[in-house]
Amino acid sequence: MTADQNKLAAALLPQFVSIIGADHVLNDPADVWPYGYDNSRKHTQPEIVTLPSSHAQVRDIVQLCFEDNLPLVPRGRGTGTTGASVPVKRGVVLSFERMTQFIKIDVNNRVAVVEPGITNQAVQDKIGEAGFFWPPDPTSAAFSTIGGNLACNSAGPRAIKYGTPRENVLGLRAITGKGEEIRTGVYTTKGVVGYDLTRLILGSEGTLAVITEATLKMTPLPQSKRTLQAVYKNIGSAAEAVSSIMAQPVIPYTLEFIDGQAIEMIRKHSSADLPVNAGALLIIEVDGQEACLEDAAQAICDAATNTGLLELKTATTQVEIAALWSTRKALSPALRNVAPNKINEDVVVPVSNIPALIEGLEKLSRKHDIKIVNFGHAGNGNIHTNLLIDSTDPEQVTRSQLCLDDVFSLVLNLNGTLSGEHGVGMEKRNYIDREIDPVTLNLMKEIKTLFDPHNILNPDKMFPDSL
Amino acid sequence: MTADQNKLAAALLPQFVSIIGADHVLNDPADVWPYGYDNSRKHTQPEIVTLPSSHAQVRDIVQLCFEDNLPLVPRGRGTGTTGASVPVKRGVVLSFERMTQFIKIDVNNRVAVVEPGITNQAVQDKIGEAGFFWPPDPTSAAFSTIGGNLACNSAGPRAIKYGTPRENVLGLRAITGKGEEIRTGVYTTKGVVGYDLTRLILGSEGTLAVITEATLKMTPLPQSKRTLQAVYKNIGSAAEAVSSIMAQPVIPYTLEFIDGQAIEMIRKHSSADLPVNAGALLIIEVDGQEACLEDAAQAICDAATNTGLLELKTATTQVEIAALWSTRKALSPALRNVAPNKINEDVVVPVSNIPALIEGLEKLSRKHDIKIVNFGHAGNGNIHTNLLIDSTDPEQVTRSQLCLDDVFSLVLNLNGTLSGEHGVGMEKRNYIDREIDPVTLNLMKEIKTLFDPHNILNPDKMFPDSL
Repeated sequence: MTADQNKLAAALLPQFVSIIGADHVLNDPADVWPYGYDNSRKHTQPEIVTLPSSHAQVRDIVQLCFEDNLPLVPRGRGTGTTGASVPVKRGVVLSFERMTQFIKIDVNNRVAVVEPGITNQAVQDKIGEAGFFWPPDPTSAAFSTIGGNLACNSAGPRAIKYGTPRENVLGLRAITGKGEEIRTGVYTTKGVVGYDLTRLILGSEGTLAVITEATLKMTPLPQSKRTLQAVYKNIGSAAEAVSSIMAQPVIPYTLEFIDGQAIEMIRKHSSADLPVNAGALLIIEVDGQEACLEDAAQAICDAATNTGLLELKTATTQVEIAALWSTRKALSPALRNVAPNKINEDVVVPVSNIPALIEGLEKLSRKHDIKIVNFGHAGNGNIHTNLLIDSTDPEQVTRSQLCLDDVFSLVLNLNGTLSGEHGVGMEKRNYIDREIDPVTLNLMKEIKTLFDPHNILNPDKMFPDSL
Repeated sequence: MTADQNKLAAALLPQFVSIIGADHVLNDPADVWPYGYDNSRKHTQPEIVTLPSSHAQVRDIVQLCFEDNLPLVPRGRGTGTTGASVPVKRGVVLSFERMTQFIKIDVNNRVAVVEPGITNQAVQDKIGEAGFFWPPDPTSAAFSTIGGNLACNSAGPRAIKYGTPRENVLGLRAITGKGEEIRTGVYTTKGVVGYDLTRLILGSEGTLAVITEATLKMTPLPQSKRTLQAVYKNIGSAAEAVSSIMAQPVIPYTLEFIDGQAIEMIRKHSSADLPVNAGALLIIEVDGQEACLEDAAQAICDAATNTGLLELKTATTQVEIAALWSTRKALSPALRNVAPNKINEDVVVPVSNIPALIEGLEKLSRKHDIKIVNFGHAGNGNIHTNLLIDSTDPEQVTRSQLCLDDVFSLVLNLNGTLSGEHGVGMEKRNYIDREIDPVTLNLMKEIKTLFDPHNILNPDKMFPDSL
């Protein structure tokens, strides 16, 4: 945004106030400051923050920005890790913190209609009372909003069995970059009338339209769950177990993976009790009817057993489950201890390529002299690759950039994708053309222009500088 | 297509021959005739039929049509019911009958990469050998192609548990209306880099791009299945049972519904043994591990039991299962006996609105003096509504059109959609704007123009005349 545009934004303050009232517009630098960052730790201070409380107000705000070419960044709670909600061109932030209503919970049709500012956890709590859950479960669920989850197509461990937002949203109400209302999708679990704009908008990171209402597909809570922990000599045997588990009919609802480096860190920074020669670890959970969980757990145990298996524990009580998860939960604090500014990527490779990925990452770790710790959602091949660096050391930062470049090449060579759930935002926009060919990328950019001809919605995101 | 364009198509014959060879181009009227119809029983004879055998040939054909503005209709096996593959402007048909290769079956990653001309059944047979299935199962599965299934987002009974193509396709290779190759999606079960063009193309009925390769997500075959038949006094109690079944955690993999009119027909035209006062019937199937099927069937029985239940049978042997399905299978021949040219719509309403839908249809049946028979995929609220008319009687045809109009109003008033799996094609193009608002529909049309600026791909389909 040019200085002139920011001046214009300031000049338009009365108009924003007339749309949503003075209490719902912020422009004091101290007030707008917190709306300039996200969990990428990048920050740009917006000129104006708007806090609408209705669909109509959102529409009017977008219309005003469209007419005056003001950059507009929709915002949930800023838990994203790619800078997708940082207002890099300053301008206007549209925060959904006052749009947190349940519009409808329709138990008979397994549908919840919600405003985008509500947190994922609030939805789980509310629909949980009726015996349902909404499958997407990013780690940030307690804080992140449904709108943010949808904008980024955020998933989490349960995606392996229950899918991502794309498999769990029926329809949207949204405002395009022209300030026009659209309704996409249906209220039913089937519908083939017209093009699927719902999924086009899901994962588009606020660059196509501003979601004002979402029709979510609810899933009945399973009767029961069982948690298993399998420890392996090495990554190869753990990966072999992942493939075996994924080739039999009992689909776990989580299948989490922790590599040898991560186990070493856990051992150093927590009291978790793990075999000395542990080279990799899987945490596997199955859910379903109580009557068949024993059998389901047995099927998983059979598939998880190979010559590299060192230890296999099944938890049945809450205390035992907590004990198994304590290992996984020890990981984040341990990593934060060592490298507060670690680089956390969320690459994906086909499940059978996990061993090649980890082997490749070990080589890159040695080549660039950077410690790399891997864990993640193995059932989807979605590995969180953590480069532990001291970001105050410019030389380490430079090395980490070269290393990251190599990591992405490795992932693409293994038929993978650069992001499974974090998205592109600012962080990966200049890498996207390594994954997507020019014709396809150009078509995406043309779609962007169609929805948002003045390029006001979350500008300078997703697409490379060159486009 | 104008007469000039058809002359041009004829004049370009040598160029098509040079792309794919004389054996792969048809232009004799007797040869091209069968490529002019689909199961809508509509027919327009194309000028030229091309039978490419590779992605590159498809690209060259589309490029030639793009350069010369020739209408091009991609075609599977013509099993669609909406006229979506009828070449209404004549021009060129691109039949995928010679593109039937399995490019890859990757058991470790649960992925099958196939050419679009392969039939659904051939995929099921082939991946079945490895212990997998592909969930979409339209009734036409034995004949219809994967390309056709994807173009129409065709589903079937199993969608209730396993979803439609949108939930079971990872990526596509395709040629846009400009003759340019694009690759969409990923090879993994997660991926959030760029916009979701895969789902945009699925269900677009060949109007955006021609699919040349599809990456399908395979699902492991369940260990075991159980089939139940529940007979009810009336539609209200059957619908109540559907809601109860859908509100508990055991999700059946089929939940089929047959109304009183349909039962009456079955009784007249088959030897099926049904209680005299049967007013509605459900066929319900559960699958999973053998160890828990007893329990799963019990959960379904509990949910299916209400004061209107007349009879509940569970089949365990193949013979018993066949006996239960004989009722459902008696329906199609019975309907064909009565009305060979019946109108078969596939409307969808929220599950809880099924009773209101059936009640409304009964009223419309009386109002327009047309017998209406309903059956379908109750778990998705997807009801096949059959208007039994004698299409040789112009007066009945007129009445049926008025009735259809009222049916669509009823469905939309019940928060439903005009089609759950058949699509729009020619049949519903002039109704689409009753479901989709002008702004959203216009955006879809602009997307069409972006992908296909010369409007060569399946022209005069999906969008109303007025657009």
